[in-house]
Amino acid sequence: MTTSANPGTVYLIGAGPGDPTLITVRGLSLLRQAEVVVFDRLVHPDLLDEAPPAAERIYVGKAAGRHTLSQEAINALLVEQARQGRVVVRLKGGDPFVFGRGGEEGLALIEAQVRFEVVPGVTSAVSVPAAAGIPVTHRGIAPIFTVVTGHLEDPAAEQDWAALARAGTLVILMGLGRLPQIARRLVANGCAPETLVAVIRAGTTAEQEVITGTLADIEGRAATLRPPAIIVVGEVVALRPLLSAFEAEPAPTLGFPIERRRLSNQPASLSAS
Amino acid sequence: MTTSANPGTVYLIGAGPGDPTLITVRGLSLLRQAEVVVFDRLVHPDLLDEAPPAAERIYVGKAAGRHTLSQEAINALLVEQARQGRVVVRLKGGDPFVFGRGGEEGLALIEAQVRFEVVPGVTSAVSVPAAAGIPVTHRGIAPIFTVVTGHLEDPAAEQDWAALARAGTLVILMGLGRLPQIARRLVANGCAPETLVAVIRAGTTAEQEVITGTLADIEGRAATLRPPAIIVVGEVVALRPLLSAFEAEPAPTLGFPIERRRLSNQPASLSAS
Repeated sequence: MTTSANPGTVYLIGAGPGDPTLITVRGLSLLRQAEVVVFDRLVHPDLLDEAPPAAERIYVGKAAGRHTLSQEAINALLVEQARQGRVVVRLKGGDPFVFGRGGEEGLALIEAQVRFEVVPGVTSAVSVPAAAGIPVTHRGIAPIFTVVTGHLEDPAAEQDWAALARAGTLVILMGLGRLPQIARRLVANGCAPETLVAVIRAGTTAEQEVITGTLADIEGRAATLRPPAIIVVGEVVALRPLLSAFEAEPAPTLGFPIERRRLSNQPASLSAS
Repeated sequence: MTTSANPGTVYLIGAGPGDPTLITVRGLSLLRQAEVVVFDRLVHPDLLDEAPPAAERIYVGKAAGRHTLSQEAINALLVEQARQGRVVVRLKGGDPFVFGRGGEEGLALIEAQVRFEVVPGVTSAVSVPAAAGIPVTHRGIAPIFTVVTGHLEDPAAEQDWAALARAGTLVILMGLGRLPQIARRLVANGCAPETLVAVIRAGTTAEQEVITGTLADIEGRAATLRPPAIIVVGEVVALRPLLSAFEAEPAPTLGFPIERRRLSNQPASLSAS
C-alpha cells in the first residue's frame, strides 16, 4: 500500500461544501496527483488550482435545467480517460453519494472494468447548516434528520417529508426554485405554519447568505435569493441566533499554495493502523 | 485573516469516520496548532499524533452505557482550557453536529463567552456505507435518506422510521445493541421482512466488517459483531455486490508524518475567493 494514485483508476472525490479547505486530506492528496480532473459547477476554483499544472481540466457541470454533458456522456468520458492509463479525478461538490450520482458513475466504471475508489466528502447537507449556526441534530430538539432534494417528483413522499419535519430536521437540497410549493405542501401535510425555516446560500464561504423565517413567510423573505441554496426546516433553526456568534469571522482560507507538497515526488509510506 | 489558530478559541473539529486521512485539510491544520486536544473514543490514534508533541491530550470518550466525563464536565473543561488562553481542539468522530453533541458544547461556550468555531467533518452516516459500496442515495432507488440513532427513546418515531425505510434509505447510528428490536419494530410498522439491511463495523478502515441480510434474518447474521457499527436499511444495500469491487484494496493511509507541515511557522496567506 502506498500513497501514490494508480494510473487507470478513477477517484470519485467529494470536494466538500464550498470552503475549499473542507476537502479531505486524502481527497487533496489524490487531486494533487491527477492527470485529468473532471469537475462540476460547484467545485471551488482554488481546488482546481491544486491539480498539477499539466493536468487536463474538463468541466462537465450542470446548471438547473441545463446539462453541459449528459450523465451517460460523463460516464463514458471517465471510462475513456481511465483506459488511457491516466489518474482520473472526478471532483464533485459535497459528497459523491449524496445526490451526486456517484453510484451511477461507479456502476458504469465497474461495468467497463475500470478501477475506481470513492473518497467521501463533507456533505453540504450537514456542514452548510452547521456553518450557519444550525446543528442538524440536537439533544432534546432533533433526534433525527432527513435529507431530500427539492425535485418533488414523488407526491407520495410529501407526507413522509411532513412527518419528518415534525419529528426532527428536514434538509432540502436543490429546492430553492420550488420553495413556495415546498412550504405550502408541508403545511398542507400537517406541519405548523410557524415551523422554522432557514435558507442558506453559498454556505461555508465568506459570501454566505442566510434567511430565516417560518413556513408561512419564508417565500417572501427569501424571494431575492438565487440558487444554489439549502433549505433547513425544523426547530434547530432556533439555535442559529445563539450558535452563529462565531459567524462574524468567516472561515479563513488556508492558503493552499503555501501548504502545497508534491506528493508524487515523495517516497511512499505505510502507516499501520 | 490568517491561517493561524487563535488562542483562547475552541475548535469543534469533526475527525471523520475512521480512516484518519478523511479529516479535512482545515481540521488537520488546526489540530497541528493545538495546545490542548480534548478527544473521544472513536478518534484514530494517528490523528492524535498530528497534534504538536507538547500539546496536552485529554481523553473524554464515552463507551455505551459508561461516561468517562459527563457532558457538563466536558463543557466546563473546554471553557476552562480556553480561558487559560490556549488553542483548544475538541476532536470528535464523524461530524460534530451529527449526534456529536457539538451543539450543546457550542451553547456552553457561547454562554461562557468563549470563542469557538465548528469545523465540519465527513459524517460516518454517509461515508461508512459508501466505503462498503452502498450509496445512501441513488437515482431511481433512494431519493431520500434519514439518519437516526438506535436509542429508540421515542416509540412514536418508529412509525416515521418505517415510513422512511420504505421511501428511501434509513441509516441508524449506535444501534447495534438494539438490532433485534429495531428489525422487529420496522417490520411491525409495515416494512417488508425482505427489506435489505447491512451492518458495518470499523467502516472506512482496513478492519472493516460488513454483514448483509434482511430485516428477517439480520439478527442471526450479525450476532457476532461488536459495536460500534452502523446499520443501513433499504434497497441501496443491493448495490453493494456491484459497487464494492474496489473494496479489495482498503484505503491506504497517507503517511501523515511525510506530509507534515509546521503551519504555525509559516507566514499567513489569504486566498481571496
